[in-house]
Amino acid sequence: MPPLGLLTILGFNPLARKIAADTSLVEVELERMARQADDPKLTEVFLHLFKSGGKRIRPALVLLAAQWGTYERDRAVRMAAAMEMIHAASLVHDDIIDEASIRRGRKTANELWGTKVAVLSGDYLFAAAARAVASINHVGVMDATAGTIMALCAGEISQSARAFQWHMQREQYYRYIQQKTASLTSLCCTVGATVSGASPFEVETLTNVGAKLGMAFQIVDDVLDFIADEHDLGKPVGLDISQGMITLPMIDVLATPEGRVLNGKLVDGQEPTAETVRLLVAAIRKSGVIDASYTSARQYLREAQDLIQRLGNSDAATLLHHLSDYAVTRTS
Amino acid sequence: MPPLGLLTILGFNPLARKIAADTSLVEVELERMARQADDPKLTEVFLHLFKSGGKRIRPALVLLAAQWGTYERDRAVRMAAAMEMIHAASLVHDDIIDEASIRRGRKTANELWGTKVAVLSGDYLFAAAARAVASINHVGVMDATAGTIMALCAGEISQSARAFQWHMQREQYYRYIQQKTASLTSLCCTVGATVSGASPFEVETLTNVGAKLGMAFQIVDDVLDFIADEHDLGKPVGLDISQGMITLPMIDVLATPEGRVLNGKLVDGQEPTAETVRLLVAAIRKSGVIDASYTSARQYLREAQDLIQRLGNSDAATLLHHLSDYAVTRTS
Repeated sequence: MPPLGLLTILGFNPLARKIAADTSLVEVELERMARQADDPKLTEVFLHLFKSGGKRIRPALVLLAAQWGTYERDRAVRMAAAMEMIHAASLVHDDIIDEASIRRGRKTANELWGTKVAVLSGDYLFAAAARAVASINHVGVMDATAGTIMALCAGEISQSARAFQWHMQREQYYRYIQQKTASLTSLCCTVGATVSGASPFEVETLTNVGAKLGMAFQIVDDVLDFIADEHDLGKPVGLDISQGMITLPMIDVLATPEGRVLNGKLVDGQEPTAETVRLLVAAIRKSGVIDASYTSARQYLREAQDLIQRLGNSDAATLLHHLSDYAVTRTS
Repeated sequence: MPPLGLLTILGFNPLARKIAADTSLVEVELERMARQADDPKLTEVFLHLFKSGGKRIRPALVLLAAQWGTYERDRAVRMAAAMEMIHAASLVHDDIIDEASIRRGRKTANELWGTKVAVLSGDYLFAAAARAVASINHVGVMDATAGTIMALCAGEISQSARAFQWHMQREQYYRYIQQKTASLTSLCCTVGATVSGASPFEVETLTNVGAKLGMAFQIVDDVLDFIADEHDLGKPVGLDISQGMITLPMIDVLATPEGRVLNGKLVDGQEPTAETVRLLVAAIRKSGVIDASYTSARQYLREAQDLIQRLGNSDAATLLHHLSDYAVTRTS
């Protein structure tokens, strides 16, 4: 059965049904990869990871981008699975780093199997993804894939090096999320369009669509940390601030009357007290900076959709338009 | 100045000097890569890693294998650096896993910068190596590279899943070291021979030489854990046993009169006492199993050298012969 969530996002129409059905094949491919892993422990870990759900936005992006050119289902599905593997690998390693024990309501790999298994499982997944991408024999895409994994790491490391440094420029934040998130959504489009033999113009345009969509997606993700229902979010509100992770609402609020008074409570390099976190979340919620973040996200959305328009009218273009809308309208 | 260590291994002749000089260029390439990394923290970590020394056996293997076909120095050096990056990445991740604070007399990345930086630095290095390999635009080599990283992980995870399971078959041990060590020495030869356009026969033969040499190298590495001088080794004698890592001398000793009496002291799944480790090391040293390990290593060495002979007479073949000798004769 195709995932209902994705159909809700893409719209109930024939191409959406086809894409949704093919994302089910991505699950099959991921399970096949898990079962073929070189060690039973790896199989166990991967089955756990791949059954943890998630909206599979990245595979959907690959399959959508692959509608330009000649869609070859098996190849597109394999690439979609590879992109999800990169995403899963980066989450496994992030969870080691954050010493997280729960993700999406399920125990993390490091919690269940320890650091050793988690480190090696992530390494293996990155390599398995690279191997899958290598199979399409396109040096540009291979280069982009390796470059994206490097960007994911660099983004994480740069942002964490700035943890608890409370004053940051917006540009700096945009640079981090470009590396941390947009690099991979962009790659999904590159890989999808390339595997189906889309034209260079289409590949380049879709690559840029993926990047813009990723920016919008991450900005909204960071906003949801402040406004979502804790249950939907699966983690406490304001967690980013407690962990010293500076995001757009936090950058903006310190320039508002509500936020400025809290400046004295924030010492660079020091964890905030629970009371300071509470006050900051309250200030963020009532100061209008949430709106400012949404304005920024919608700006990226507009840029993505302008690019989509340049690809002409097609069912695929409409669906990609819907998927990019979702980056901004989602609530969890 | 070319590294004296390598010249001692390869022999003081013109080609050895050329190879040794070119391994110095590998150091330059590694430093360039470190300085170009996307974050100053990554640069700091990589400079530390690459200055930690090591004998650079893997880069030397690449440069030697690249003597078949047409040697293009810049490309060969780039591939040699890529293989050293994979090796360094796997060491960084191993040190996280083992919670090691010292390697080769210097602090480890996780000790100096914490788990987060160590995990991400390793990921970044693997990806940077994959990117370098992708640049030669050879899908078979790209596939082999990804497959090797997968094998390194699978070998580590399988061997550690068997930690403290004291009774193991030799075949099992050979399988682990094939994945953990021989896969990468084999890849070094594949990549070197491929980048210089060696014939398919040469590429395949050199690939097998690298695998055999890696087996010999790891068997001797595991023996040195029991017989080397602690100072040369840079770690306590018998450390593998304390950590539950089963190697060839340990497998063999339990079948000897000296070892059999210690069987009762070894409980599967349990750490041995310091006294048991001491007794096992003593039994291993006097029971003749060290000789048996060397016999096994020399068998792999012979297979490697038989293969080298099939490649005909050349200075490069002689040097490769010397390098494989070193795998068995080294003392640290």
